[in-house]
Formats: sequence, structure tokens, C-alpha cells
Amino acid sequence: MPTPQASVILAAAGAGRRFIEAGAANGPRTDQRPSKVFALLAGRPVLAHTLERFARVSSVAEIVVAVSAESVEGAQATFGDRIEGGRRLVFIAGGSDRAESVARALEATDRGTELVAVHDAVRPLIRPATIEQALHVAIAHGAAVVGRPVDHTVKAVAPDGRILRTVPRDSLWLAQTPQVFRREILMQAYQHRENLVGPVTDDAQLVEAMGQAVMMVRGDAFNVKITTPEDLRMCEVLLAAGWPFES
Amino acid sequence: MPTPQASVILAAAGAGRRFIEAGAANGPRTDQRPSKVFALLAGRPVLAHTLERFARVSSVAEIVVAVSAESVEGAQATFGDRIEGGRRLVFIAGGSDRAESVARALEATDRGTELVAVHDAVRPLIRPATIEQALHVAIAHGAAVVGRPVDHTVKAVAPDGRILRTVPRDSLWLAQTPQVFRREILMQAYQHRENLVGPVTDDAQLVEAMGQAVMMVRGDAFNVKITTPEDLRMCEVLLAAGWPFES
Repeated sequence: MPTPQASVILAAAGAGRRFIEAGAANGPRTDQRPSKVFALLAGRPVLAHTLERFARVSSVAEIVVAVSAESVEGAQATFGDRIEGGRRLVFIAGGSDRAESVARALEATDRGTELVAVHDAVRPLIRPATIEQALHVAIAHGAAVVGRPVDHTVKAVAPDGRILRTVPRDSLWLAQTPQVFRREILMQAYQHRENLVGPVTDDAQLVEAMGQAVMMVRGDAFNVKITTPEDLRMCEVLLAAGWPFES
Repeated sequence: MPTPQASVILAAAGAGRRFIEAGAANGPRTDQRPSKVFALLAGRPVLAHTLERFARVSSVAEIVVAVSAESVEGAQATFGDRIEGGRRLVFIAGGSDRAESVARALEATDRGTELVAVHDAVRPLIRPATIEQALHVAIAHGAAVVGRPVDHTVKAVAPDGRILRTVPRDSLWLAQTPQVFRREILMQAYQHRENLVGPVTDDAQLVEAMGQAVMMVRGDAFNVKITTPEDLRMCEVLLAAGWPFES
């Protein structure tokens, strides 16, 4: 039985507001808002690391990256149109929010792949083994999300900082990415996304709303999402120390 | 007005089961279960780092450390009975669970201090500035907990791994330590702790149950709790890279 092939969508169109605000005190301010996916990590753009991680997974057939409209041309020129093994690498213009960016990227994928994996481009320390595990679970169950069980006490907090209550944490997990879906399930979820009320913070939520089973896959704590300069520093430090610490 | 003085309780009596199980594959197995507070971090016991962080805060009047009964004598001999500035350092035998350990440590504190700070001894990368901020908020409001807003999508997950639903995260924070209280509030909370039904995972929960206001204080992502060898590695890496990155 041939391994099902996967299209990978990297969501990277965010303006990186929190990143720039946090860094503003320490660096020169410019009118431009470079996306944090192009920030340098160990001398290379964050995105280069993320691409490399997915390129190591043989069932990845192509990677579609949603970036800001003004970055498409430059990114395609910089990163080229192929990853290792001649697999397709495409940059497209993202939309006004993450869901719109993923929807556009989905349109740009090859309809022939069985699975679609959506990943935050600013999570460069994803382990190829974790990606593979999520792909396998998605084949078996239709949808899989990488995450971590909550190991802290969780508090509901009022806007003024007062704790309202302790929230039972036994069944709670923090979702990361990748989130992997059978193609038809994700396409259907995106077609019906207008029906969902309230904020959508990840793709699995759209699929859950359809009543489709979504399984959790245990990832690790090093799958850092780079949101602030502090996060970038954390990734620098981990890479310098020899992450992924394979023994 | 003199700065209110604080007693610090370090909870370190845990057997470190998760730590030892996770490490068992890589290291020699012994019948002994050394607590993870005595594991070496950058060449010194984890506890030595934690003590040093609290010793830097001038309003800390004393530190009481709850360890396993068999570690009391050795720890007191190793770490001495004073921290910098001649302040008292006491090791006591903890109880069968964390709450019992904290209750015993509370008994061993000097009744003359106005505040009591409870901290996980296995969080060696706590910033003195964060400790000070928590002390200040506790003076003003009676109780303060260091934590971080949840920045991941939160999922409720069934025992078989299936996602049950996406949990609105807007008001959710993850509690860390230190958790600081006016002495009389914490003592009252511990006197009435038998009344609380269900698992108690932090001290603030007991105080919340009294209807007492507890305020959140924003900490940072580097306040790692060492639960597994992976966490210890993370702390090693951060220290080697020059944490706390003071600029």
C-alpha cells in the first residue's frame, strides 16, 4: 500500500504585531512590518528551518506558504520553487486573517493529495517524527492535532487581574500545530466556516464543528511558536544547544 | 514605612516519579528515588539555584524547605542554616502530599512575617523581580499568583484522545509559582482545607475558596517547572545561554 501523500500549508501571513511591539524598545523602528517568519534564527530565516523540517518527511508532496501579498515575489525568489527531492514549493498571498489565508492556500494545493497538514510557519522546531505521527493518526481517524496536556493549574481571570476560579484541568490540552486532515474533511470545513459563530483560533475547531472526530497527538514542549523576541531567543538557545537532542 | 517581611516556603517533598520514570531508559536504575530538587543543574543542585534567586530579594526574611523525611538531615548539612545576610534556612519533613507539606512548612515559619510566599523548589529560573512584584501585589490585595495568559487554543480531550470541544481561552491563565499571601489569609485557608472537595493543585485554590481576592501577576515563559529530564535540559540550555538575559 503506498503511503498517502500530504500537502503542507504553512500559515505565515501574520503581520507579527506582537513581535514588533515587543522588540521596538530595543531595535530601530521602521515603517515596514517584516513578518517574523523572515526573522533570522541561527543565521537563517525562521521559515528556512520550518521548510527543512517538513522536507525531511517523505510523504510530504508539496508545501504551500501563505505570506503577506508584498512578500510573495521576494520569498519565491529567495526560497525557490522546489524543496529537496523536486517537490513543489509555492508562495501565495494570504488573506485578512488566518482562516482566509489557509482557505487560499488550500485552493493552491494539488487536489491529488489525500492529506492536508496546516502548520504555523513560526514553529520551526517541529520534529519530523511528530509530523509523521500526526499524518498517520489523520489517515486512521480523519483529523489529528499535535498538542500537549496542560500541566499547570488553570485559572479564569477577570480583566482586572482578579482570579475568578480554578478551572478543572484534567481533560485540557494545549493545541499546537501541525493539524492534519483528510483533504475532503478540511475542504468541507472551510466551505462551511461562515456558519461558525465566535473566534476561530485553529483549523481543528472548524472540523470539530462538523461533528467529525479529531484526535490529539502528543507533541513536545520544544515546538515553540515564535510570537515575541523572547520566543526567538528561546529557539536560538535550543538550536545552539544541539536541539533536537537526538541520542 | 518598612517593607513587609516575607517567609518563603519551598515545596520540594515530591518523590519525582515522572522524572525518574522518564529518565529510567537512559540511566542506571536504583531503588532510591532522589528528589529532582537535588538533580544537578549547571553543576549545582536545582535547589541551590532556587535558594539563590530568593536570597536576592531583600524582603525575604527566611526560607523553609519541605523535603522528604529522609532528606532533611543531609539537606540541612549541605545547604547550611543561613542564606546570604544571615537569614534563616530550615529544612523540614514534608507530608504525604503537597498541601500537607506546605501546611507543615507554614507551622515552621516565623509568625512575625507579614507575607508567606509558596514556591515550587523545582522552578529554579524564577526572576527576583517577579518575586518582588508578587510580594507587592500580595501586600496590596492579600494574595497574588504568578502566571501566564494561555496563548494556545485549548481543547477538552476524552481519555481515548478524541477532542471533545474547543474551550474559550480568553480569560484563561496558567498558574505558576510563587504564590504569595498575607500570613493570616494563608493560615486560615490551610485551617479550612479539609472542607474543599476535589483535587487541590495549588495554594491559591484554597484561598479562592474562602472568597478572598487573588490577583494574577504576569511572569515569563522561562519559569520552567522541572518535572521531566527534558525540563532539566531546557534549564541547562537556558543557563548556558546566559539566562536571565539581563540587558
